[in-house]
Amino acid sequence: MDAIERRLRDRREEHLAQLKSLLSIPSISALSEHKQDIRRAAEFLKEALTDAGFQNAQLMETAGHPVVYGEWLGKPGKPTVLVYGHYDVQPVDPLHLWQTPPFEPDIRDNQIYARGASDDKGPTFLHIKALEAILQEQGELPVNVKFCIEGEEEVGSAHLEAFLNEHQAQFQADLVLISDTTMLSPVKPSICYGLRGLAACQIDLKTANSDLHSGLYGGAVPNAVHALVELLDTLHAPDGTVTVEGFYDDVIELSPEERAEYAKLPHDDESYRKSLGLPALHGEPGYTTLERLWARPTLELNGIYGGFQGEGTKTVIPNEAHAKVTCRLVPGQDPNKILDLIETHIKKHTPVGATVTFIRQDGGYPYLAPYDHPAIQLAADAYTHAYGVKAVFTRMGGSIPVVETFSQLFHKPVVLMGFSLGDENFHAPNEHFSLTNFDKGLRTLCYYYLNLPTALNA
Amino acid sequence: MDAIERRLRDRREEHLAQLKSLLSIPSISALSEHKQDIRRAAEFLKEALTDAGFQNAQLMETAGHPVVYGEWLGKPGKPTVLVYGHYDVQPVDPLHLWQTPPFEPDIRDNQIYARGASDDKGPTFLHIKALEAILQEQGELPVNVKFCIEGEEEVGSAHLEAFLNEHQAQFQADLVLISDTTMLSPVKPSICYGLRGLAACQIDLKTANSDLHSGLYGGAVPNAVHALVELLDTLHAPDGTVTVEGFYDDVIELSPEERAEYAKLPHDDESYRKSLGLPALHGEPGYTTLERLWARPTLELNGIYGGFQGEGTKTVIPNEAHAKVTCRLVPGQDPNKILDLIETHIKKHTPVGATVTFIRQDGGYPYLAPYDHPAIQLAADAYTHAYGVKAVFTRMGGSIPVVETFSQLFHKPVVLMGFSLGDENFHAPNEHFSLTNFDKGLRTLCYYYLNLPTALNA
Repeated sequence: MDAIERRLRDRREEHLAQLKSLLSIPSISALSEHKQDIRRAAEFLKEALTDAGFQNAQLMETAGHPVVYGEWLGKPGKPTVLVYGHYDVQPVDPLHLWQTPPFEPDIRDNQIYARGASDDKGPTFLHIKALEAILQEQGELPVNVKFCIEGEEEVGSAHLEAFLNEHQAQFQADLVLISDTTMLSPVKPSICYGLRGLAACQIDLKTANSDLHSGLYGGAVPNAVHALVELLDTLHAPDGTVTVEGFYDDVIELSPEERAEYAKLPHDDESYRKSLGLPALHGEPGYTTLERLWARPTLELNGIYGGFQGEGTKTVIPNEAHAKVTCRLVPGQDPNKILDLIETHIKKHTPVGATVTFIRQDGGYPYLAPYDHPAIQLAADAYTHAYGVKAVFTRMGGSIPVVETFSQLFHKPVVLMGFSLGDENFHAPNEHFSLTNFDKGLRTLCYYYLNLPTALNA
Repeated sequence: MDAIERRLRDRREEHLAQLKSLLSIPSISALSEHKQDIRRAAEFLKEALTDAGFQNAQLMETAGHPVVYGEWLGKPGKPTVLVYGHYDVQPVDPLHLWQTPPFEPDIRDNQIYARGASDDKGPTFLHIKALEAILQEQGELPVNVKFCIEGEEEVGSAHLEAFLNEHQAQFQADLVLISDTTMLSPVKPSICYGLRGLAACQIDLKTANSDLHSGLYGGAVPNAVHALVELLDTLHAPDGTVTVEGFYDDVIELSPEERAEYAKLPHDDESYRKSLGLPALHGEPGYTTLERLWARPTLELNGIYGGFQGEGTKTVIPNEAHAKVTCRLVPGQDPNKILDLIETHIKKHTPVGATVTFIRQDGGYPYLAPYDHPAIQLAADAYTHAYGVKAVFTRMGGSIPVVETFSQLFHKPVVLMGFSLGDENFHAPNEHFSLTNFDKGLRTLCYYYLNLPTALNA
């Protein structure tokens, strides 16, 4: 370990120069004029993997941008880690807000500034360099490693699932390791072990053939906006609880240990409320804010529309009204079942005089790593080694579709070891990545890889 | 009466030729390029009044288009009737749907086709010709008569109230007579004696500083759309009753006689429902459809909007949501008081975590003529005389702002003697006016004017 860490220190400038080269490539997946840049970034990583000592490094074609693959399989019988990352980046507008050009990486205040520095070229690059250091110093890796670095994460990973399905055998592994999440703070490393899933639908409500004049018809006919309001109000209790029958049935409740851990995390409701400009917070009774965000499902009305929206007055009885709905799901819940429950509820509560069309949209499974799995516990130890403070276990309220994809496909733990910080402007001008986390991240990952066989008793 | 009716028959072609001349003038008040046409139409009526034997016929300027005035005040001590009408017309688009050009009046199938034929040049013209016939045959009128024919009805009568306020003494009368409403059917003449009023407002609801990500914040913060739905759902009971405290307090209930009259009117709920394409009608329990439309107040959500309205899914927690509201008010109710009650209700029921801005908009008083006033009862007799069937008493669910203006200003009965039919395409291509109603309308009005002194015991 000492030799490896010495090597990382000695070669820091060389590594940063390589990262700068990678960050110089404008691999924006959303813009078709950058298609060649996307390929250049993929080629760069293929070379970097080969240089690091990986075999079979190659660009594998998908229906969209290619996936970069590389492998080191020199330890038959030992566990195999699949490392996921992405080399595509977000667009850069508005360009004039960047202090230095987004594809001319600049180091200042111990941060490296460039589009993709934090999301996700920097963190992905750490894995290559950490593994290279081990391989070069020890002549071998402690475990087998495969890389899957995609080029479409910022446009929804549209082709990844089909690609992995097609190449399932090749990407088989005992665990998936991803560095594409954030730490709680620079002095508070964290391992995210749970994500919420998604279930989306649309409710279209109709009454009469056409809008009607409120003077000539008002009082005798149903109003689509009234009916929708009445229907939607049956979805929640005033305290915020979802009242769809069976909605909470499959929820895996938080363990007392998890609740105790969350209670220790730095969070203050009052400053949270103030920062959002809210008169009051509002959520399911019996749970703290972090519990509500991380481990309780929601049914959220994302939008509503019907009738007149202009200035002034229009005396119309609307004949149509619409609602956009998404649920955040927590471990145990199935998006299809949840949509079934909502559909049943909607049909049961459709008001007199209205007809409702229920449209099912996207769904995504929630993810929960086995909290006490040794591969997860080891991640915490690795952070503790590099950062000198105990790492904490958190969940996230959002969804990471690729985590769900890997989890559903391989049924293996997905370990989320993030090195980015929430204020590093990913998806915004002046994206940057902390060089402190660059250095400590390398040490964290080396520790993790080196100790994995022992942790897994393999 | 015989001589008068003979005169009307003898001069029918002459009268129709005059009406055609009036209908040839494209006096569209909404389009500024027709300003000179508006004046031409006003001048035409001034001449027609003078020719009919009225004095002081003149164009009186307003802040917009002029009002045509004329008077015959030869019966001091006898009642004075103020006749209101309008000479402006609606625009004519889409022009290609007209069978004959809108300002080239054409008589076919005993209808006269032209923009303004039914609304309201035709009916207004009937008053001039009926009074001319009496004046020419008898040398005097049985009552004093003043005309107020405005040129801005189709653009909201924006300047009429201020104008009448300014000239209140000149327009003083014992009753106001208006022919700008419809009959129930060609064989069912009707007198409208009640109109609903209006009270409009907007509800703007806000939660957080900005829209929030449903993954990162969902479950812990209020959602403006949820809050608005919860708030709006407190406004009605599921059966359609308005649940704003005090909303019905001032409503003048229908008399048993009125209910009995309405029950005799031709109306079939099932065909009404089918014609509107509705699964079911919906309204306040305990009242029939006609009662709900004519004599019960409503609180109608005319529009709702907040959050995402695009295609697909957006996982957003909206921080703003809005509702447009109008009430139709019935006799007894005061629009300002109703808005006060709604505002109080909204404030009382504002959900946790939300702030609400209540914006007061238009208001208009309901109108109810004294059902048993002899000037109203005489109107029914006049129809019976000309149509040979008993006229019925109805109300209207809509509002006629000028009726409210006259009622509030003069506190005298406003008698609505309509000769138009609901299917005469006012505001649409191929507007027309039935020549049967042209003929019977003249006879009805002559009978009315001639018998008014007796009816009023004056």
